[in-house]
Amino acid sequence: MKNFNFHNPTRILFGKDTIAELKDQIPAEAKVLALYGGGSAERTGVLGQVREALAGRTVLEFGGIEPNPRYATALKAVEMIRENNITFLLAVGGGSVIDATKFIAAAAKYDGDAWDILTSRGSVISQALPFGSVLTLPATGSEMNSGGVITNLEKGAKLPFSSLHCYPVFSVLDPETTYTLPPRQIANGVVDAFIHTIEQYLTYPSAARVQDGFAETLLRTLIELGPKALETPEDYDIRANLMWTATMALNGLIGAGVPQDWASHMIGHEITALNDTDHARTLAIVLPSLMNDQRGPKREKLLQYAGNVWDIREGSDDARIDAVIEATRGFFEQMGIKTRLGDYDISASGIDHIVAALQDHGMTALGEHQAIGPEDARRILEAAL
Amino acid sequence: MKNFNFHNPTRILFGKDTIAELKDQIPAEAKVLALYGGGSAERTGVLGQVREALAGRTVLEFGGIEPNPRYATALKAVEMIRENNITFLLAVGGGSVIDATKFIAAAAKYDGDAWDILTSRGSVISQALPFGSVLTLPATGSEMNSGGVITNLEKGAKLPFSSLHCYPVFSVLDPETTYTLPPRQIANGVVDAFIHTIEQYLTYPSAARVQDGFAETLLRTLIELGPKALETPEDYDIRANLMWTATMALNGLIGAGVPQDWASHMIGHEITALNDTDHARTLAIVLPSLMNDQRGPKREKLLQYAGNVWDIREGSDDARIDAVIEATRGFFEQMGIKTRLGDYDISASGIDHIVAALQDHGMTALGEHQAIGPEDARRILEAAL
Repeated sequence: MKNFNFHNPTRILFGKDTIAELKDQIPAEAKVLALYGGGSAERTGVLGQVREALAGRTVLEFGGIEPNPRYATALKAVEMIRENNITFLLAVGGGSVIDATKFIAAAAKYDGDAWDILTSRGSVISQALPFGSVLTLPATGSEMNSGGVITNLEKGAKLPFSSLHCYPVFSVLDPETTYTLPPRQIANGVVDAFIHTIEQYLTYPSAARVQDGFAETLLRTLIELGPKALETPEDYDIRANLMWTATMALNGLIGAGVPQDWASHMIGHEITALNDTDHARTLAIVLPSLMNDQRGPKREKLLQYAGNVWDIREGSDDARIDAVIEATRGFFEQMGIKTRLGDYDISASGIDHIVAALQDHGMTALGEHQAIGPEDARRILEAAL
Repeated sequence: MKNFNFHNPTRILFGKDTIAELKDQIPAEAKVLALYGGGSAERTGVLGQVREALAGRTVLEFGGIEPNPRYATALKAVEMIRENNITFLLAVGGGSVIDATKFIAAAAKYDGDAWDILTSRGSVISQALPFGSVLTLPATGSEMNSGGVITNLEKGAKLPFSSLHCYPVFSVLDPETTYTLPPRQIANGVVDAFIHTIEQYLTYPSAARVQDGFAETLLRTLIELGPKALETPEDYDIRANLMWTATMALNGLIGAGVPQDWASHMIGHEITALNDTDHARTLAIVLPSLMNDQRGPKREKLLQYAGNVWDIREGSDDARIDAVIEATRGFFEQMGIKTRLGDYDISASGIDHIVAALQDHGMTALGEHQAIGPEDARRILEAAL
């Protein structure tokens, strides 16, 4: 096992009717800004539950945070915070709203140009407004980690940041809020959480039995319950298990003390940049091809994954690896997510763009061995056409 | 899944040579009191590493904290803290030292009679001195939770307490510090962590796949690595996995959102009170008998445990339950821990004492259904003779 430093101070309030507990989590004297996205928070009644829980308190609202949240929008929220002496933020939504709220919380307390936060990847952050979240979409894990991604359209940049000051003080996870999510968002969320787990698991053995066993639990849960969540949207236990799984997939626990990959994410980001394909879908394109391409360096963990997650235990090593790659691809397809570049109208010339973008962004040594360069990415993408 | 509220703010510094990181975790201006137990912290060099890490700082020392730490000893530490204006505590040792340090941290900030802390089970605690720990014995999980147990010899009482103010700020887990532990302590620690996990797992199904899968991972790791830890004491990866497993077994995560039992612990405590048998050994006596006695209410989880932890999948339900109880007992015996009351010179008259003590202490409705009364406990103990 590698050495690690693990710390996650976010409180999780999990279960039915937990939005009502907001009143005990936010100081009574706080001036609150509730941040949300489009109309769904209002339409589904979640925003109504938040207003009811905080009735009598000072709560302003800021809506319109986009998927892939925008820098310009975030700055407007910062202005509103300063004008109104807001002291506590409450994100109501999915990963985009929570990511934006993290950035806004830091920017509101930052004296310089807020753009520094992104160019420094968050390292200039020395304080942030306290904030909580009400999660409505299990997927990104943002509700229990300290990172986010912000898009600046003017500069054509989508930049990640993180800071120990950017953990939510609390996150409310009520699985019933997910009943009304469109199937496309559930599918994306399940695949996103699946690949978050894979990026921290499918590398090389590091004698980390707890982390491996936890990761395998999360993967098996997503494989078994993902399709069922699409079939029976109002099954509480299915939604509850998916929600907790997605949180555990990226709160630092399964990644503590183990090597990590993240090549599928880095390549996938450039696909999104090319034609705005949903993040999870780009991962579903890259991962099966990358698994096949990297079957040498990943051999031992691919075989462990085949046996412990998919119960594939018969046949030669290569046959089991072939089988588990097909099983993984089949799972994504079963979730309604296509796994070929062609399915998203990306052809060989698109690959040139993606490879050039990786080079431009310095993404030239990806994976757990920092051994996947642009030409390796090209080969992986060509096999995914 | 049941609703839950999960929060664990303790930072874990895990791995080789992590004791040196103490200097970054304790404020430079702090007046530190390092607390430890008998001579082993000195003898093994751990205390030396602590002194070296904090060289040049103000560090006083308080040794002599007992196994089953004593109230009177803790009060002496409180006096020393007040006399010297100590601002930060550092526990160096196993669960007993960390438990005592939690109590001392709270008592030093409590204006009334410190005994109130124990009679209120910790609810009177409104603040505590900040403290960290350097763990040297994987077992109790105290390094990443907020509870402890203190013994008052004069009053003949052993009382638990917990408080949200009693989480360690950080805990340093260097697996190499465990190389020199006597086999008896390793065995006790493995069995203690195993039964902590069982108490939160072996109840009734509650559609908690993440928690169940995590618990099964911990149990499998202990079963596989426990005996190996006795055979090869200086295998880093074995010790690292055991150490992280014991922490994860009782830091609140696997118990969030699921029913919990704790009957084996409550009955076991009275065995220790009777003749000072090691805590883990009392659990190893009670659990196999309790599993057999409660095979009705625990049927579904016993079968899940048999299949997922022991790979026992053949035979009738009762045959598999018989097999998994024997496998569990065999594991304890393999660790060198006897599982019968007779092995500890306790006979039928001892059972009378234990049952009377349960009654005296109000332990009359134990288990996940609060359905194990004193006469049920008597039956369980008689079957363990």
